Amino acid sequence: MDVARRNAPASGAPQARRTGEARTVTSTSIPQPDVFTPRHLGPSDSDVEAMLKVLGYPSLDALIDATVPSNIRFNRPLNLPAALSEQEALAEFKAMVAPNQVWRSFIGQGYYGTHTPAVIQRNILENPGWYTAYTPYQAEIAQGRLEALLNFQTTAIDLTGLPLASASLLDEGTAAAEAMQMLHAARSGRDVFLVADDCHPQTIDVVKARGAARGITVTVQPAATFTLDATVCGVLIQYPNTFGSVEDYRALCDRVHAAGALVVAATDLLALTLLAPPGEWGADVAVGNAQRFGVPFGYGGPHAAFLTTKEDLKRLMPGRIIGVSRDSNGRPAMRMALGTREQHIRREKATSNICTAQVLLAVMSGMYAVFHGPDGLARIAKRVHHLAETFAAGARALGHAVLHEVFFDTVRVSPKGGASAVKQAAEARKINLRYFEDGTIGISMGETTTAADLGDLLAVFGGTASAVDATAKGVDPRFDERFRRTSAFLTHPVFHTHRSETDFQRYVRSLEAKDLSLVHSMISLGSCTMKLNAAAEMFPVTWPEIGNIHPFAPVEQTQGYRALFDKLEGALGEITGFHAVSLQPNAGSQGEYTGLLVIRAYQAARGEGHRTICLIPQSAHGTNPASAVMAGLNVVVVKTDPHGNIDVADLKAKAEQHAASLSALMVTYPSTHGVFEEAITEITEVIHRCGGQVYLDGANMNAMVGLCRPGDIGADVCHLNLHKTFAIPHGGGGPGVGPIGVAEHLAPFLPGHVVVKTGGAQAIGAVASAPWGSASVVPISMMYIMLLGSEGLTMSTKIAILNANYVAKRLDAEYPVLYKGKNGTIAHECIVDPRALKATSGIDAGDIGKRLMDYGFHAPTISFPVHDTLMIEPTESEPKAELDRFVDALLAIRAEIALVESGALPRDDNPLVNAPHTMEHCTADAWTHAYSRETAAFPLPWVREHKFWPAVGRVDNAYGDRNLVCACPPMEAYSV
Amino acid sequence: MDVARRNAPASGAPQARRTGEARTVTSTSIPQPDVFTPRHLGPSDSDVEAMLKVLGYPSLDALIDATVPSNIRFNRPLNLPAALSEQEALAEFKAMVAPNQVWRSFIGQGYYGTHTPAVIQRNILENPGWYTAYTPYQAEIAQGRLEALLNFQTTAIDLTGLPLASASLLDEGTAAAEAMQMLHAARSGRDVFLVADDCHPQTIDVVKARGAARGITVTVQPAATFTLDATVCGVLIQYPNTFGSVEDYRALCDRVHAAGALVVAATDLLALTLLAPPGEWGADVAVGNAQRFGVPFGYGGPHAAFLTTKEDLKRLMPGRIIGVSRDSNGRPAMRMALGTREQHIRREKATSNICTAQVLLAVMSGMYAVFHGPDGLARIAKRVHHLAETFAAGARALGHAVLHEVFFDTVRVSPKGGASAVKQAAEARKINLRYFEDGTIGISMGETTTAADLGDLLAVFGGTASAVDATAKGVDPRFDERFRRTSAFLTHPVFHTHRSETDFQRYVRSLEAKDLSLVHSMISLGSCTMKLNAAAEMFPVTWPEIGNIHPFAPVEQTQGYRALFDKLEGALGEITGFHAVSLQPNAGSQGEYTGLLVIRAYQAARGEGHRTICLIPQSAHGTNPASAVMAGLNVVVVKTDPHGNIDVADLKAKAEQHAASLSALMVTYPSTHGVFEEAITEITEVIHRCGGQVYLDGANMNAMVGLCRPGDIGADVCHLNLHKTFAIPHGGGGPGVGPIGVAEHLAPFLPGHVVVKTGGAQAIGAVASAPWGSASVVPISMMYIMLLGSEGLTMSTKIAILNANYVAKRLDAEYPVLYKGKNGTIAHECIVDPRALKATSGIDAGDIGKRLMDYGFHAPTISFPVHDTLMIEPTESEPKAELDRFVDALLAIRAEIALVESGALPRDDNPLVNAPHTMEHCTADAWTHAYSRETAAFPLPWVREHKFWPAVGRVDNAYGDRNLVCACPPMEAYSV
Repeated sequence: MDVARRNAPASGAPQARRTGEARTVTSTSIPQPDVFTPRHLGPSDSDVEAMLKVLGYPSLDALIDATVPSNIRFNRPLNLPAALSEQEALAEFKAMVAPNQVWRSFIGQGYYGTHTPAVIQRNILENPGWYTAYTPYQAEIAQGRLEALLNFQTTAIDLTGLPLASASLLDEGTAAAEAMQMLHAARSGRDVFLVADDCHPQTIDVVKARGAARGITVTVQPAATFTLDATVCGVLIQYPNTFGSVEDYRALCDRVHAAGALVVAATDLLALTLLAPPGEWGADVAVGNAQRFGVPFGYGGPHAAFLTTKEDLKRLMPGRIIGVSRDSNGRPAMRMALGTREQHIRREKATSNICTAQVLLAVMSGMYAVFHGPDGLARIAKRVHHLAETFAAGARALGHAVLHEVFFDTVRVSPKGGASAVKQAAEARKINLRYFEDGTIGISMGETTTAADLGDLLAVFGGTASAVDATAKGVDPRFDERFRRTSAFLTHPVFHTHRSETDFQRYVRSLEAKDLSLVHSMISLGSCTMKLNAAAEMFPVTWPEIGNIHPFAPVEQTQGYRALFDKLEGALGEITGFHAVSLQPNAGSQGEYTGLLVIRAYQAARGEGHRTICLIPQSAHGTNPASAVMAGLNVVVVKTDPHGNIDVADLKAKAEQHAASLSALMVTYPSTHGVFEEAITEITEVIHRCGGQVYLDGANMNAMVGLCRPGDIGADVCHLNLHKTFAIPHGGGGPGVGPIGVAEHLAPFLPGHVVVKTGGAQAIGAVASAPWGSASVVPISMMYIMLLGSEGLTMSTKIAILNANYVAKRLDAEYPVLYKGKNGTIAHECIVDPRALKATSGIDAGDIGKRLMDYGFHAPTISFPVHDTLMIEPTESEPKAELDRFVDALLAIRAEIALVESGALPRDDNPLVNAPHTMEHCTADAWTHAYSRETAAFPLPWVREHKFWPAVGRVDNAYGDRNLVCACPPMEAYSV
Repeated sequence: MDVARRNAPASGAPQARRTGEARTVTSTSIPQPDVFTPRHLGPSDSDVEAMLKVLGYPSLDALIDATVPSNIRFNRPLNLPAALSEQEALAEFKAMVAPNQVWRSFIGQGYYGTHTPAVIQRNILENPGWYTAYTPYQAEIAQGRLEALLNFQTTAIDLTGLPLASASLLDEGTAAAEAMQMLHAARSGRDVFLVADDCHPQTIDVVKARGAARGITVTVQPAATFTLDATVCGVLIQYPNTFGSVEDYRALCDRVHAAGALVVAATDLLALTLLAPPGEWGADVAVGNAQRFGVPFGYGGPHAAFLTTKEDLKRLMPGRIIGVSRDSNGRPAMRMALGTREQHIRREKATSNICTAQVLLAVMSGMYAVFHGPDGLARIAKRVHHLAETFAAGARALGHAVLHEVFFDTVRVSPKGGASAVKQAAEARKINLRYFEDGTIGISMGETTTAADLGDLLAVFGGTASAVDATAKGVDPRFDERFRRTSAFLTHPVFHTHRSETDFQRYVRSLEAKDLSLVHSMISLGSCTMKLNAAAEMFPVTWPEIGNIHPFAPVEQTQGYRALFDKLEGALGEITGFHAVSLQPNAGSQGEYTGLLVIRAYQAARGEGHRTICLIPQSAHGTNPASAVMAGLNVVVVKTDPHGNIDVADLKAKAEQHAASLSALMVTYPSTHGVFEEAITEITEVIHRCGGQVYLDGANMNAMVGLCRPGDIGADVCHLNLHKTFAIPHGGGGPGVGPIGVAEHLAPFLPGHVVVKTGGAQAIGAVASAPWGSASVVPISMMYIMLLGSEGLTMSTKIAILNANYVAKRLDAEYPVLYKGKNGTIAHECIVDPRALKATSGIDAGDIGKRLMDYGFHAPTISFPVHDTLMIEPTESEPKAELDRFVDALLAIRAEIALVESGALPRDDNPLVNAPHTMEHCTADAWTHAYSRETAAFPLPWVREHKFWPAVGRVDNAYGDRNLVCACPPMEAYSV
């Protein structure tokens, strides 16, 4: 049989031979160690057989042949190494990254040494209870990370002195670009954005690229020379600036505001524990990177960026905001606020395509603030500042010029004998500094900097380590009145309560216990591919040679990372059928934006800059049009036919109508309706014939790996969601990684970076702050590919399709499957349609989703891509028993609905409209419902063994949006 | 104020200066990084103040002065390095163990390469939800690890073919010694025990030492020469033997049984997947080490040993047995069976002192079996065997003599050119082999052995790596009929269900969720010191240079471990005031046994071997008399006075009465009654005057560290429980580490080891299989000492005493504190006495303990040392808020009892006798109790935020003991 052999016999099994032989063994006669693939796949061999029987297919391949159109099939094995055991893969990975050198980096420029408290590393970063959770759309079973994110928002709000925060953005550069777009939208008609030239270079780079795409004129110059006229929508300044200097921007802000424009301040959370915050001196928006709050360098990311702003810019904020509302019992309950801003329902109106946050990292940074509290943070900041002042005093005493008078952590020095001797001495001590082109040098201190480091730094500048103590004594590390912070911050009790590790760990664990994650049950989110995030795949993330490298460390020190990128890019190229890959985009949305920019650059280079029309099918994910708008394209919507497929006639008509200005088609494949459209090759031909490029959204790549390739079916570019298809965990809503693959003609335009050389010969500007985006989590995808190998990857796709079809088949009679392929099969997900029940019972998809919580399950994707339906994607990692429990739950819910239809249960008091039921509710002395407590809490017998209690009753979204609270509420709020 | 400064100001704080300066910095003017001490301590500065106010003391030192008798105070700071930050300590520790070299070890001899599946490492070994749990005395909140232990027992039962198993013993040597004692007890009057000379040398060593102490004549000789007469109680054989040979013992077993004796087989679980199990060829007891089921070498331990036996030896089994009983609802529920065998209620009748298991390791090994299942285990075994056969064939082809015909994983070779060339070639490749004195060499394969390793091994013997494949092809790895296993094993569904990582992880997490651990709430176990097990302290345990070293690796490769042992022994010596320390005892009980053997050896060396009387106070922990019996001593009980103190007059009288034969006094200090007895120095003087030695039980060392020292108050030897006082987690009931410290005159007698030189010049035999016992967890204690430093350790003791006194003070009015010191204070724990309530309400201490579960707390120690009382030890790590919640719960329970007393609640239907209440119970449609559901489930408002549901109702112990089931019950059993 053609399925993964769960337990290959000791020797001679075809799969064991095929997958184990190539690299690490010298004998084919000795049985191979276990390969990992069967651990990744949910169903056993006998499960597969049983499921095929239900589906009526004689073999897995027969099902696949019936599902994937033959004209697009990829008819050879992927040219990738064979699968490895956990231990082989870890050993091989270790060897691959061994060339990485962990030097001490005092480079700064937005990234600083920080200690991740061990209790945070163990209980959050390395804990699947946190990292396998999904985005908190289902608030009732996500109160833990919602509270953690509220802590993050409160941290950003208090430290920047601005009243509203979002729950993290992708990086500082992106945050600055988003802020620019906010100001542009707030000051419509004003198309100039001024950027101070002492902002971080990578931030400027990202902002410029975004401005160019959006038609905003970005001018970079000294802030003192800003010309503020009626064309200027806003300005961006950095505080402290990239050279370390702390400037007084009060007068500038007044000038900007007088001119009707607004101010964005890029800033640093640790500095703001000592320095007057932007909100107190006139900034309208503050952005920055929270990395130094407990998140390792990771060679550039992922880290959580923050954005805070004022009340009147609320509706323009990008990304997610966690807000406090109330639940059905009137108790406080958190949820994502201003839901209309989630891009899947914004479509063409989008001003931002950001729909991934950096939740796991924001949780870590927020918890770092909880762990240290305001006094602890200030103590760390004072120490950092004292180190910097001491170094400056020492450097001055040695005859070097210190260029700036007021600084926090970064000292810029003009060395008296020139930079080269200093550089040589630094390299001899394995120390990285920031070398400016003008011969000056930047030295940034961080939490990790020790007095011994300071001695070495002074030695590097010709001094002696022993001078440190005397020098430090002579220093007055206080800021003068003009800059000193006087306002309190982090006054909420949560930042004062959990300081012992015992208490802190219990707090973290108590939040974790409120959140349903993959450690509890299947999370069948259509288009989100919540597959196994294996422990062995996660191990390298917390290795020092992965985590402790500054993004701008010299390339000679990062050869391990280069080998990793090369290998991963090669594998993704093979899997997608593309010529080249860029790992820079740090979210799927950024991949889309990048891919379109690459297309536009290619067309511009051919003299076709006028091509600005982007065709997008009705069924597309909302980020598609949002990304198109961000890339400066005009969206034209293409119809879908009654079967959910693209209406090819309409497509043809529109492509031909706009042929002269057609830039691209964005198409998701298989479609967001869960179907392999037969016409895809015809579609891509039409676009090419009309002069356009085809952008393929890789959200559904999990249905394709090893079976068909975007490059082969006519796509010119596609992005991949490594956090969906390639096993990076969702982290509760981020990090995401969204690399793009491109055909050869587009390769020269892959994005570059202003600090580190990367990308194509005619590279577009950077789309992320770091050259390789979220570098420290791509090991997860590499490990995934190494563990599964060519055959395992393909088998995963087949099992994903099998699992989806099995679920669809079992549900179809009660919940009609909305779209199917020509043979009645679906791809890796399906949309089931309960809309008919609304009329007969008043129950809608949302009610069903909430009721699933009572059965211990997370809701599938609701109302996307078709309103009031459920989109289910089980992935290959779920065992049959779990699929059966899930289906049984939905069927039991259908039976409950039938009781409402028949009148046996009232429309306004039944287990569905009252769902989810809390522990408090079910154990209350009073019980007044038309159904029993047991029906409420344990509707099926096995629920007792799988019970997961929602922390709150159904959350009132509208109430929260009317009364937006996005910082930790006072404790009294909880005593309702 | 004299308390730990939670958040020292940025510079200049006395503590920051005192604790941070010594080693790692070059400046005292720059603020120091955070020290760890305030993270370890629960109460904040203001908490300390508030608690002192309640207690009526002006300062912490005033409380301590009132509590610890001045005549025993230690009046200088501990001479230990200053405290470090997490990062400093980890860096310093890393540097200390850097000299360890991880070579490939094919030494075998009871320890073999194994892969810990990543999902087990992350979700069990590195997960505080598992490792911070206590011994599962409170079964209702321990069903998760009880099930995991049942899996372990089932694994041992099925693989050995014997029907009863215990839930792990300390190591293979100890298990063999315990088995010997079983047979000795079963065949009373027969004092000879025969040991085959092809058992592992370290096992023989431990058995001989135990036999000598117990008056059993242990004779070591070839099994073929055993003389079986009426003096022989049993025999010990090894299968496969230490040389690798697999022998047929059927005839021997018949001979032994015919002579009225019994057979113990030391064996290997992996081998038994292929070989006929001991239970099928006549063994009465099987023992062995489960290490190779997923637990790293760890330089000797901890690992879980197993012991299985037949029904008729049930009552003689040592250690703990997990059995299946039923709960108050009639549903199956697990708990520790045959509770009478727990040593604290056996006293003088003890035949074993083992009251610590290796729960965490047993859980890992049981889960390894669940993860692989019988087919997976057999596949690993076949591969190992194939590797061994291939090596043997290769060696033969190269002209070497292979000494044994039938073997599993170990090949013994007589190299044609002698051993030295082979040894040189092996060392050049960083390969460790087992070199016998006769010039032969043992080579053992394990799960980690690769084909490449095999190539290297053949090269070491003069061959070529390329020969591996051809050689492997020619090998027939099957055992012949005489040895081949034909019976099925691990047929229970649990070993067949959880094979995908997704499913397996959910299974592990679902068990974890049933267990209350320190991540949930305080576990206030008197005499067990459940303090913080900090994440940073745990990190080194899973470093390769700690985990991947074979216990018999040459000393040159283990210099990092030596440095660690030296440093830790030095620190423990300073803390206890002793001259020398042995880390070998791998449980507190083993420490007691070792200390007494050392005393006896010292006395024997002085010609005082006739000293066999051991005085033990009435209040002693039950392991004390058990250990004394094991050490061949006769116990004489000393009375305690009405205040709980030793009756000095009685002690004097008995010491003088037995002066001629007095060996030792065993005394716990502070007493098990929680009091610093003023008379302790008088007591030790009396014993010394009468020619005896003083053994101090260090169970309560947490009340002494930095305040007084056993060595200073007259003890000659004491053991420490590193898993109590020095932060090694309890692991759910093990591992324990029980080193002993001794005065100078006893140092020459510290235990040695037959393989690796250790111990004193006149060393007693080994008490554990590995030279340094559970080497891989002692880093936790070392890190603890490095993190806290001299001052932090002392402050911890003071805060432990403060916390205990605060709890005692708050409880005293409602639950009288039974024993106090002369100033009305207690040490670090207190006994509260609810016995008066029994008459007025029918409620006893057990009911209170069960009711505490409903409030989210683990019961304190119940009925020890005083029947029907509660002994509470909060430790220094609990914050005041948690202490208050705990006290509030007990006071609320007292109010509930008052309702029973007043008749407001019936004696047979109240929340206490019905406790604990399950989720199922509280949400059932029917509710017939005299009190409300809310009273049952949420008796105080904050319980809602801290609710922990017991998985089952109150467990019926008697039923389970009458119907002993200690393997996984069939699934149907659960469908009651």
